[in-house]
Amino acid sequence: MSGIQAVNKKQLVLVSGRAHPDLADAVAAELNSEVLPASAYSFANGELYVRFNDSVRGTDAFVIQSHAAPINEWLMEQLIMVDALKRASAKRITVVAPFYPYARQDKKHRGREPISARLVADLFKAAGADRIMSVDLHAPQIQGFFDGPVDHLFAMPVLMDHMKKVLDSDILTVVSPDMGRVRVADVWSDKMGAPLAIIHKRRDPLVPNQVSVHEIVGDVNGRDCLIVDDLIDTGRTIVAAAKALKDNGARKVIVAATHAVFSDPAVEILNSDHVDSVVVTDTLPLPPEKRFEKLTVLPIAPLIARAIHEVFEDGSVTSMFDGSA
Amino acid sequence: MSGIQAVNKKQLVLVSGRAHPDLADAVAAELNSEVLPASAYSFANGELYVRFNDSVRGTDAFVIQSHAAPINEWLMEQLIMVDALKRASAKRITVVAPFYPYARQDKKHRGREPISARLVADLFKAAGADRIMSVDLHAPQIQGFFDGPVDHLFAMPVLMDHMKKVLDSDILTVVSPDMGRVRVADVWSDKMGAPLAIIHKRRDPLVPNQVSVHEIVGDVNGRDCLIVDDLIDTGRTIVAAAKALKDNGARKVIVAATHAVFSDPAVEILNSDHVDSVVVTDTLPLPPEKRFEKLTVLPIAPLIARAIHEVFEDGSVTSMFDGSA
Amino acid sequence: MSGIQAVNKKQLVLVSGRAHPDLADAVAAELNSEVLPASAYSFANGELYVRFNDSVRGTDAFVIQSHAAPINEWLMEQLIMVDALKRASAKRITVVAPFYPYARQDKKHRGREPISARLVADLFKAAGADRIMSVDLHAPQIQGFFDGPVDHLFAMPVLMDHMKKVLDSDILTVVSPDMGRVRVADVWSDKMGAPLAIIHKRRDPLVPNQVSVHEIVGDVNGRDCLIVDDLIDTGRTIVAAAKALKDNGARKVIVAATHAVFSDPAVEILNSDHVDSVVVTDTLPLPPEKRFEKLTVLPIAPLIARAIHEVFEDGSVTSMFDGSA
Amino acid sequence: MSGIQAVNKKQLVLVSGRAHPDLADAVAAELNSEVLPASAYSFANGELYVRFNDSVRGTDAFVIQSHAAPINEWLMEQLIMVDALKRASAKRITVVAPFYPYARQDKKHRGREPISARLVADLFKAAGADRIMSVDLHAPQIQGFFDGPVDHLFAMPVLMDHMKKVLDSDILTVVSPDMGRVRVADVWSDKMGAPLAIIHKRRDPLVPNQVSVHEIVGDVNGRDCLIVDDLIDTGRTIVAAAKALKDNGARKVIVAATHAVFSDPAVEILNSDHVDSVVVTDTLPLPPEKRFEKLTVLPIAPLIARAIHEVFEDGSVTSMFDGSA
Amino acid sequence: MSGIQAVNKKQLVLVSGRAHPDLADAVAAELNSEVLPASAYSFANGELYVRFNDSVRGTDAFVIQSHAAPINEWLMEQLIMVDALKRASAKRITVVAPFYPYARQDKKHRGREPISARLVADLFKAAGADRIMSVDLHAPQIQGFFDGPVDHLFAMPVLMDHMKKVLDSDILTVVSPDMGRVRVADVWSDKMGAPLAIIHKRRDPLVPNQVSVHEIVGDVNGRDCLIVDDLIDTGRTIVAAAKALKDNGARKVIVAATHAVFSDPAVEILNSDHVDSVVVTDTLPLPPEKRFEKLTVLPIAPLIARAIHEVFEDGSVTSMFDGSA
Amino acid sequence: MSGIQAVNKKQLVLVSGRAHPDLADAVAAELNSEVLPASAYSFANGELYVRFNDSVRGTDAFVIQSHAAPINEWLMEQLIMVDALKRASAKRITVVAPFYPYARQDKKHRGREPISARLVADLFKAAGADRIMSVDLHAPQIQGFFDGPVDHLFAMPVLMDHMKKVLDSDILTVVSPDMGRVRVADVWSDKMGAPLAIIHKRRDPLVPNQVSVHEIVGDVNGRDCLIVDDLIDTGRTIVAAAKALKDNGARKVIVAATHAVFSDPAVEILNSDHVDSVVVTDTLPLPPEKRFEKLTVLPIAPLIARAIHEVFEDGSVTSMFDGSA
Repeated sequence: MSGIQAVNKKQLVLVSGRAHPDLADAVAAELNSEVLPASAYSFANGELYVRFNDSVRGTDAFVIQSHAAPINEWLMEQLIMVDALKRASAKRITVVAPFYPYARQDKKHRGREPISARLVADLFKAAGADRIMSVDLHAPQIQGFFDGPVDHLFAMPVLMDHMKKVLDSDILTVVSPDMGRVRVADVWSDKMGAPLAIIHKRRDPLVPNQVSVHEIVGDVNGRDCLIVDDLIDTGRTIVAAAKALKDNGARKVIVAATHAVFSDPAVEILNSDHVDSVVVTDTLPLPPEKRFEKLTVLPIAPLIARAIHEVFEDGSVTSMFDGSA
Repeated sequence: MSGIQAVNKKQLVLVSGRAHPDLADAVAAELNSEVLPASAYSFANGELYVRFNDSVRGTDAFVIQSHAAPINEWLMEQLIMVDALKRASAKRITVVAPFYPYARQDKKHRGREPISARLVADLFKAAGADRIMSVDLHAPQIQGFFDGPVDHLFAMPVLMDHMKKVLDSDILTVVSPDMGRVRVADVWSDKMGAPLAIIHKRRDPLVPNQVSVHEIVGDVNGRDCLIVDDLIDTGRTIVAAAKALKDNGARKVIVAATHAVFSDPAVEILNSDHVDSVVVTDTLPLPPEKRFEKLTVLPIAPLIARAIHEVFEDGSVTSMFDGSA
Repeated sequence: MSGIQAVNKKQLVLVSGRAHPDLADAVAAELNSEVLPASAYSFANGELYVRFNDSVRGTDAFVIQSHAAPINEWLMEQLIMVDALKRASAKRITVVAPFYPYARQDKKHRGREPISARLVADLFKAAGADRIMSVDLHAPQIQGFFDGPVDHLFAMPVLMDHMKKVLDSDILTVVSPDMGRVRVADVWSDKMGAPLAIIHKRRDPLVPNQVSVHEIVGDVNGRDCLIVDDLIDTGRTIVAAAKALKDNGARKVIVAATHAVFSDPAVEILNSDHVDSVVVTDTLPLPPEKRFEKLTVLPIAPLIARAIHEVFEDGSVTSMFDGSA
Repeated sequence: MSGIQAVNKKQLVLVSGRAHPDLADAVAAELNSEVLPASAYSFANGELYVRFNDSVRGTDAFVIQSHAAPINEWLMEQLIMVDALKRASAKRITVVAPFYPYARQDKKHRGREPISARLVADLFKAAGADRIMSVDLHAPQIQGFFDGPVDHLFAMPVLMDHMKKVLDSDILTVVSPDMGRVRVADVWSDKMGAPLAIIHKRRDPLVPNQVSVHEIVGDVNGRDCLIVDDLIDTGRTIVAAAKALKDNGARKVIVAATHAVFSDPAVEILNSDHVDSVVVTDTLPLPPEKRFEKLTVLPIAPLIARAIHEVFEDGSVTSMFDGSA
Repeated sequence: MSGIQAVNKKQLVLVSGRAHPDLADAVAAELNSEVLPASAYSFANGELYVRFNDSVRGTDAFVIQSHAAPINEWLMEQLIMVDALKRASAKRITVVAPFYPYARQDKKHRGREPISARLVADLFKAAGADRIMSVDLHAPQIQGFFDGPVDHLFAMPVLMDHMKKVLDSDILTVVSPDMGRVRVADVWSDKMGAPLAIIHKRRDPLVPNQVSVHEIVGDVNGRDCLIVDDLIDTGRTIVAAAKALKDNGARKVIVAATHAVFSDPAVEILNSDHVDSVVVTDTLPLPPEKRFEKLTVLPIAPLIARAIHEVFEDGSVTSMFDGSA
Repeated sequence: MSGIQAVNKKQLVLVSGRAHPDLADAVAAELNSEVLPASAYSFANGELYVRFNDSVRGTDAFVIQSHAAPINEWLMEQLIMVDALKRASAKRITVVAPFYPYARQDKKHRGREPISARLVADLFKAAGADRIMSVDLHAPQIQGFFDGPVDHLFAMPVLMDHMKKVLDSDILTVVSPDMGRVRVADVWSDKMGAPLAIIHKRRDPLVPNQVSVHEIVGDVNGRDCLIVDDLIDTGRTIVAAAKALKDNGARKVIVAATHAVFSDPAVEILNSDHVDSVVVTDTLPLPPEKRFEKLTVLPIAPLIARAIHEVFEDGSVTSMFDGSA
C-alpha cells in the first residue's frame, strides 16, 4: 500500500461568541480547558468580523452563543463563526445555543407567517453546522426542524435540586401559568410529590375579545406555589399568575424558569409583592441591572460542559437525564 | 428573437392512491372533474406498481392518499406516485395527506428515538413533492418539518356547523380529554359560547406508576358534554373520559374528532353507554364494519376540494378559515 | 492550543429490523458480537416505533433488514431506524439490504412509470444512510442510483462451492432461464467448466401476443441442467424452464438462486417433478412453510459478516471476490 | 391586491453546442425556428467561452450537443452553456444529448471504478439542468441516474421504416451481435415478423482466457441478416459478427444502429466484404471522411424536434412510440 | 383528459423590509403599484415578526431591503420575509438588496476567516430565495457566490447623467482613490472623455508598517477631480484622497459613489474643505442627520423599478446597460 | 455494549491524473510515499477510464491534476477519479488543482455569460470532493465559490527565495503589468524592499477602441525590472510590458509568474530581447518544447507536499505563509 498512516486523534475546541463570554468561560473551566482565542468585532456599519487565532483544522468544534438582545446580531455572529470554522477545516461543528432563538415562532399561527424557528435551523445548516445543542426548547418539536442530531438538555434537574433544598413539599403546589405549560408542570408535580394547579386565562363574557379572568384550577389557599415555565420574557404572564395566586390565598409564590430573557419590564414587575422569589439559570447573560434581591441564578455551565464531554467522548447525553429525558 | 412562443396554460390533475378512492372521487366531483385513470397493483411479493394512463406533463398534480392501515403500504404507494409524476414531467406536485402519517412521533420523547413525522416530510421531499396539504395536524409544528409550503386545513368549521345544529348550547360544556388538547377545546369553547372542562389524568398516590384517576376540572353535572379531539385511534382515552364525565353527572357525552383511525377496539368500546354519539369526518376510509349507529360521518371532500381550487387558482387558503386559522 | 485531545476510537454496532432476526443474529455471531438491543413494535394503526436501548453516539452502525413481505413495512422500519441513528449521532450509517427492495423496477419500461429502485435509494439517503450494502443486485446499474458507496456482494462463491461438491461437471450444463440472465449463466458456465444452454421464450407465430414456446439453445439431452438466476419469486419462469429441459431429455434439473422470495405458488410448483433440487441462500427469511425437502438453504451470514468486517476495518470488499467481482 | 398582473407566456429557445451544428439547425428547421445566436470559442489554453447574443430570460431552453470526440470538450461546453442559461434566468433547461456520454460506464464492473454515466447526470444537475432528453440509451437504467425527468426517445421507428422499405422480410433474419443486445433484437424480430439469431461469443476451450469462437444460434444460411445494435464504435464486434454470419452461409449482412460513433478503424473495416450495407442515424456528426458508399444516414432531427415540441406544449412523448416505448 | 384547465397568469408583488421604506415606496410608484401591506415589528427581546396581510400565493415576489445599520437586524428581517413567502406559496422570490451586505468580506484575507459574502448568499438560498438583485457589488465575483441568477445593476448611468450636467469635462480628471478601484475609474475616464489619476497609498520607508504617503499618479494640478468609488463608509479613505488632491493643486474635488453607508465620522469629515461636493444614490436610507449641504442624493428607484419590470416581463436587464454592463 | 471497537487510524493516499505525473511523483517523493497505482486510459471515442489498483477504503485521498491543455480532458479525468474514490469509500477527498481551471471566468463581464470558475467548483462538489487545494488563485474570491474548505497556497515564498538570490535589490523595481495585478506587485515591492512601477494600458485618444499606449507609472530608467504576475498564458501582455519597460530605459526585465500556461506564441515571444529572464513554477507541465534558455522552473512540489502534510496531520496551512497569507 502506497499510503501514509497515522493514528487518528480528536481534539475538542470551544469557541464563543461575544454575547455571554462568562458562560463560555465557565463551560471551559468545567472542562479544564479554555475558550479558543479569537478576534471578533463590529465594523463601523455594523458588519461583524471574526477570526480564530489558532488552527482549528480537524477539530471537534463547539460554538457557544447566548441569544440575548440584540438577538439577530448574536445569531449572525454565530453563523459567521460556523462559516469560518467550516472553511478552516474543522471536522465537526456543533452549535451550542442554550436559549434557542426564535423558538416561539415554531408554527404558522395564521397564514403568511414565517416559521422562524425552522428558518434558524436552516441557517445553521447552511452555514455548516453538523449538530445543535440546546437547553429546554420551547417546543420539543424544534428538534425535528434540524436535519441532524440535536442534543436537547434539560435544566429541570438543576432547578429541582435547588428547589428541593429550599421548599417544603408538604405545603407546596406546582402551578402551570397557562395551558401551554401544563405538561412540564405535570412532571414537576410528579417529581416533587406535590399537587398541581393550573391558571386558565379565560375571556370575560362581558368584555369581548379580551382575556381578563385568571381562573385557578386546583387548591392554592395557604400553599407555597411554585410556578414553572421555560422562560420569562417580559414577565407579564408570570406576574399576573402570581397575583391571581395571591388573590386566592397563596402563602408564597416562587417562580422557576430556565431562560431569563428579562425584557422590559420584567425586572421591575417581578420585584412586585406578588412574587416572593425567582430562580433561573444563566443560559442568558444577566448583567447587574437585571439582577435583584429576590433572584437566584443557578449556573448552567456544568450541565452544558458535561453534555459536551459526552458528545466528544461518544458517551451518552440521554443517560444524563434518565427518567426526565 | 429566434424562439417559439405560446400561451402558458395550467392544468390540474387529481391522482389517487388506493387507500380511500371514495374520498378522491368525492373531491373530484366537487371540482367537477375526475380522478386521473391509473394502473396500481401489488406484485406477489408485496412490491407496488403504479402507472398513469394519461399524460401528466406540465400539470399541477395533487396526489391524494389516506393513511389508514396498512399505513406503510399506502405511504409507499404515494411516494411511488410522486416519483412517477416527477419523472413524467409534472410541473408541480402536491401531496394531499388528509391524515398526516406518523404525526404523533413529532419529537424525541426519549433519547435514540426517531422523529418519524419529520422523516415522512423528508421522504415526500426526496420523492419529489413540492407541497403538502393536510387536515388538522396533530401538532402544528409539523408544518415546519417540510421545506416548502404546507396548506394546513381545519375541519373545525365542518364539525362545528354540524354541532351547532344538533346541540343546545345552553346546557353544553366543551371538554378536553387530556392536557394536550386544551388549546383546541379552548377555541371550541369560545366559538360555541360554552364553558370548558378538562380531564386531568393523575397518578393515584396509592398506586405507583399508574394513571388511574381522571379528575375533571370544570362543571359537568347535568350538562351535555362535547369532547373534542383531533383523532380517535383505539378510543380508550375518549371512552375513559366519557365514563368519568358520566360518573360526574354528565347528561350526555358527544365526541367530535377529525380523524377516525378506529383501531381495535375503538368501534366496540365507542358503542358503550358512556358515549351517546360520535361525529367524525371521512379523512380516513370507514368501511361498513367500522360504522355503527351512534356514528355520524361528515364529508371532508368539500373542504379539500375548495383548498385545491384555491391553490390551483392562486387564491387564498387562509381566507377559508378566517379567524380560526 | 486550548483544546482537549483524545484518541479516536471507532465502534461497530449491528442493528436489525424485525423482518429476519435470525440473519442478523447469525451475522453478529460471525463477528463475535451481538445485535444492539432495541425496542421495535407496531402501533394499533400500523405505525411503527423504534428505539435503541444503548447509546449509538459516534458508532459505525450497520442496519440489517431483509425485504420480505410485507416489504413496505420492513422498508419503512429500516428508514425509521436510520433516522433514529442519525438523530442519535451515529457517525456512519450503512444500510444492509441483502435483497434490494424494488430492484426490478429499475427503469421506465413505459411512460409515466416510476423508477422505484432509484426512489428507494433516495429514501435511504433522505433518512440519513451514508452507504448501502446489498447482495446480487437484480441490475448492477442500481449501484449508480445511490449517491455514495454501494458494497455489492456476490453470492456466487457461496452457491458455487456447494454446487462443486454435489454436481458432476462432466455431465453438467449451465442454463439461463431467459435472455436477461445470460451474462450470469455465462460466468457460471466458465467457472464450472460446463457448457451453456439458453431458454428462449418465443412468441408462437400461430398464437398472437402470447409467449408459448420455450426454445432451448444448446444441448441438454442426458445432461444435468443447472438453472441459475438471481431470485425466485413465484417460480413460474423457473418451473417452465425446467419442464422444457426435461421435455428435451435433461437427466436432472437443479436450480440455484440467491434470493428466495418464494411468493405463491413458488413452494408448490417447485415441488413438481420437473425440478430435482433447489439451492438458495437465506438473504430472505424462510419460515418452515416455505421449506420443502428438495430445498437446500445456504447461510449468507458469513459473506455479509466478512464484508462488514472489511468495511469497518477499511479493508477491501473487492478482494473478497477477485475475478468474480 | 397591490400586485401587477400579466398573462404568462412561454417561449422556446434552441441552443446548440459546436459539436454538431447541422443537427441543431435541422431540429430548428423542423420547428420552423432558428438556433439562438451565441458566441462560443476556445481560448488559447483550451478553456471554452460561451455567451448568448439574445436574452433568454424566462425561456424554456433546449441545449443540444452531440457527444462526439473530443467528447469531454463538448460535454464541458454543454455544461458551461447550462450554467450561462441558469444565471441568465432561463425558466427551464433541458439538456438534449442524443448520444448520452459515458453511457457504457453505467456500473462498477470491478471495485474502485467510477460510474461515469451517473457522474455525467450529476454534472448536468450541478450545472443547472432540469431535464434530459436522449436517444436510445445504452442501458435504460440510466434514466434513473438523473433526479428529474428524462425523455428517452427511440430511433427504432426511424430505422425500421427504412428497413421495411429496403428489405424482404421473407428471407430476413434479425441478428443480435452479442448476448447484451438480445432484448432489442427480439423486439425487431417481432416487429419485422422475422426469425431471430444470436451470436454467442464463447471461450475456445483450447485457448484459455480468449474469446475466439462466434457461435451462431438460429438459422442464417441463405438468409438476409439484419444485425441491430444501439451503437457502432470501432466496429470490431459488428464486423466479426458479420464475418461469422457470412461464414455460415448468410446471403447478405445489413447493419442497423442508432449511434455512429465510428472510431478508428470502424470506417475501414465496415467497408469489408462481410458487410453489405450499414444504416445509422445522425445523432453524431458524420464528416465526409466517415461516410462511405455502403452507408445510409437517416435524419434524427424530425424525432428530436417532435419530442421538443411535445415537451414544450405539454403534450405526450410516450405517445410518439406507442407500443415500442 | 380528466384535468381542469386555466390560463396561467402571473402577478408581481413588492414586499419591503423596514430599513428603508421610502425606497420601496418609490420603486412601487415607478411601477404604478404599491408595496404589499405587511405587519412587521420587533418583540421585546429583539426577535422579529413578519406577516403579509394579503395572499401571495403564486406571485412573483420581490423583497426589498436596504442593509443599513443595524445591518444584521435588517438581514434577518429579509430572511424571515423570504421564509414567510416560501411557506405562503409564492412562485418565485427575488431578494432585492441594493447594497449587498458583507460584500467586503468576499475572500479569506488570512486563514480562519469567514467568507461572509458567500455566507449571506447561502442564507438567502436557505431561506428560499430564487434570485438576487443588487446594485454595484463591491466585487463582481459575488455574483458567483449565489447558485442562481443574480441581476447586477449599475448605478453608473444614473451618476454619470448627473455629472455630465454639472461638470466641465475639459478640466476634469477622474480619480481612483486606491488601487482596488482603478478598473471602475478607468471606465468613468473613458466615458467622460477625461484623463485618469490614481492615488497610491504607499508605506513610508521611514515609518515601518504604516501607510502614510498618498502618491498621486497623473496630473491633477488645476483640475476638477472626480473621485469615484462604489461606497463611502467612514469616508476616511475618500477624504484623505481629497486632501492629497488639493495638496497637489486640484481646483475642486467631487466625490461620486453609489452606496452612502456614512458610518461615523463620514458626515463630519466629508464636510471638510477638501471635498467640494458629494454625489450618491439612495440605495441606503439617508436620514436628515446624514444629509449636508454639499451632498446630492440621486434616486435609485427608477433603475431598480425598471430592472424589476424587465425581470417580471422576461425582458432583458443586460440591455439596460449596453456597453457598461 | 454490544459493539466491536478498534483504534481509528488514518491513511493518506495520493492519486494522480495523467496531465502532469512528474509533479505527483515529486509530491509523493517529498512525502516519502508513492502515487497510488491506477489504470487510466482513453477509449477510442475519447471517453476516459480510471480504476485504482489498491483499496482506498477509509483513506484521506488527495487527487492531483494539472489543468494544462487539453484542459477539459484533464478536468473530466479528475472528476471521474473523484467519483471512483467516493464510490470506493474514501473517507475524505481533496482535489489538488495547482492551477485552478477556468479561474479567469470568475464573474459575468456581460449578460448571459457563464461563471465557469463557479461551475468548476460545483462540478468538483457534485463528483464528491470534500476540499480543494490550489496555488495562487487568479482571484481570491474563488475560495468562496466552493462550499467547503479551500486551501489556498502561495507560490510567492518559492519565487521570492529564488529572486532574492539572483537579483540586486538596490537597483530593483517591482512592476505590475496591468491594473489588475497591482495588489500582488505591492506585496512584492514591500517584501523585496524595492519601489513599485505600474504599467497602465491606456486608450490612445487618436485611435478609438484600441489599447495602444502603455504608460509607465514609476521610475524604471536604469533599473532591473521584475514583472510579477500569477500566470503567463500567451505572453502577449507580459512582452508588451517588457517592451515598454525597455523603451523607458530599463536595464533588465525579469518576469516571475506562478503558472506557466505558455499557450502559443508564449515561448516564441518570451524569447525576445525585451525579456531577460523568466522564472516560473511547475504547477503545469513544461515539456521540452516549452522550455528555453532564459527560463528557470522552480519546483512547486515541496510547497504542495508540505500543505498536504499539514492537512493530513491537522496542522496549520496558514502558518506556512505567515504574513503573506
